[in-house]
Amino acid sequence: MVRKNKKISCAVLIIGNEILSGRTKDQNVSYLASWLNNNLGIKVEEVRIVPDIEKKIIDSVLYLSKNYNYVLTTGGIGPTHDDITSKSISKAFKKKYSYNKEAFALLKNYYGKKFNNPRKKMAKMPKGSRLIHNPSSTAPGFIIKNVICLPGVPSILKSMMDNLRKFLKPGMKVYSLTISAQTIESKIARGLGAIQKKYRKIVEIGSYPFFRLGKIGVSIVIRSSNKNRLQSCHKNIIKMIKNKKIKTFKGN
Amino acid sequence: MVRKNKKISCAVLIIGNEILSGRTKDQNVSYLASWLNNNLGIKVEEVRIVPDIEKKIIDSVLYLSKNYNYVLTTGGIGPTHDDITSKSISKAFKKKYSYNKEAFALLKNYYGKKFNNPRKKMAKMPKGSRLIHNPSSTAPGFIIKNVICLPGVPSILKSMMDNLRKFLKPGMKVYSLTISAQTIESKIARGLGAIQKKYRKIVEIGSYPFFRLGKIGVSIVIRSSNKNRLQSCHKNIIKMIKNKKIKTFKGN
Repeated sequence: MVRKNKKISCAVLIIGNEILSGRTKDQNVSYLASWLNNNLGIKVEEVRIVPDIEKKIIDSVLYLSKNYNYVLTTGGIGPTHDDITSKSISKAFKKKYSYNKEAFALLKNYYGKKFNNPRKKMAKMPKGSRLIHNPSSTAPGFIIKNVICLPGVPSILKSMMDNLRKFLKPGMKVYSLTISAQTIESKIARGLGAIQKKYRKIVEIGSYPFFRLGKIGVSIVIRSSNKNRLQSCHKNIIKMIKNKKIKTFKGN
Repeated sequence: MVRKNKKISCAVLIIGNEILSGRTKDQNVSYLASWLNNNLGIKVEEVRIVPDIEKKIIDSVLYLSKNYNYVLTTGGIGPTHDDITSKSISKAFKKKYSYNKEAFALLKNYYGKKFNNPRKKMAKMPKGSRLIHNPSSTAPGFIIKNVICLPGVPSILKSMMDNLRKFLKPGMKVYSLTISAQTIESKIARGLGAIQKKYRKIVEIGSYPFFRLGKIGVSIVIRSSNKNRLQSCHKNIIKMIKNKKIKTFKGN
């Protein structure tokens, strides 16, 4: 794949009362973030979760589409009364909310005589949208301007990612390395802070405490689009840790 | 508990690059949403996930604290360089970022001679904050205005919820019922839509397709703070489903 030497940013907008009520645990944020970075070098820089309320969807879409290269929405494109994503996005961009001919034909062919009104609703979207094909249950997602609308059901969403690929410009791949140290954060905080200063704006250093098999540890995650600087930063951290006689966990 | 006959709203702000990179799956949103509703009748109405960037944290905190009764933040209150929540919130509210005497004394007592600078940092917060005590690892959370700052590590966060309780005014309890029907959404969409119209603004009806043990189904989740209307809506949905000769899954 040709990698452009450019940062491409993205926001994710999760639409659905079921996530906000705590009933359903979101699975799409971590999947989309990993997929976008690993496959296209696109970085998710903000996530919002909003209820099935038109004004909330419109405000979020307009803000996010202005501030990031892409916005991916999940949820609210099914046949029921609480599926209001397509209509809300039509309003946000002042586009007519109407049947997409291609989507209508696909769904008609799929459902045959059982193509009722709720199913027809799944062919309605902002005028001018292009379709993201859905190999698992036909009802397509769509892209309008820089906003991409996908379903909320994780298995269906995943099946559509390869069809989404062609609509997205790749960015710089971000590489990451993890060092899991047998220590606590406050023992390495000063050392890490100094190294972060040295690699400021080139390598991003994160520190995450954990408990694993009864042991306390810290995962130090370093991320950069510059492989050489990443390796050099990695060496510096390993050196700092060894100087403090801190062991790392197996596999590091 | 005395329930006030009033809606109390809340937003959750997740602060952390590790969630946005996809490396760590967020566990706090669904936990906080369920806990707040079940224990205090407080509804989470919006969630944002932002990176460890001061401006992003400040902008989000100011917007959310204006628009909701409470804001709960998670993450970024540890000892390392990437923990910038307390400082950012001090700036947002134009409060001095300084040692909280009580937090300083607690941490000093806990760490003894090992109370180094990174650990001291965990006692720094916006001037005027009240502490949320932390029974698992001492470093406290805090509340300033209507913003409550909690740690990101789920097990520590959970251990602090009981200490948070006294700072929050309870709202109306929201009750919910679920009907899991052996059907697909488009078969019940029209019926559900009509029932939603009837109970508009009193009962919220959500429809969520699922696959379980090789069977396709739809979970219909209804939510209301009015128990009688909820029961009446439940009866209407059951009747609509029976009329269509649709079975429900066991346990409904």
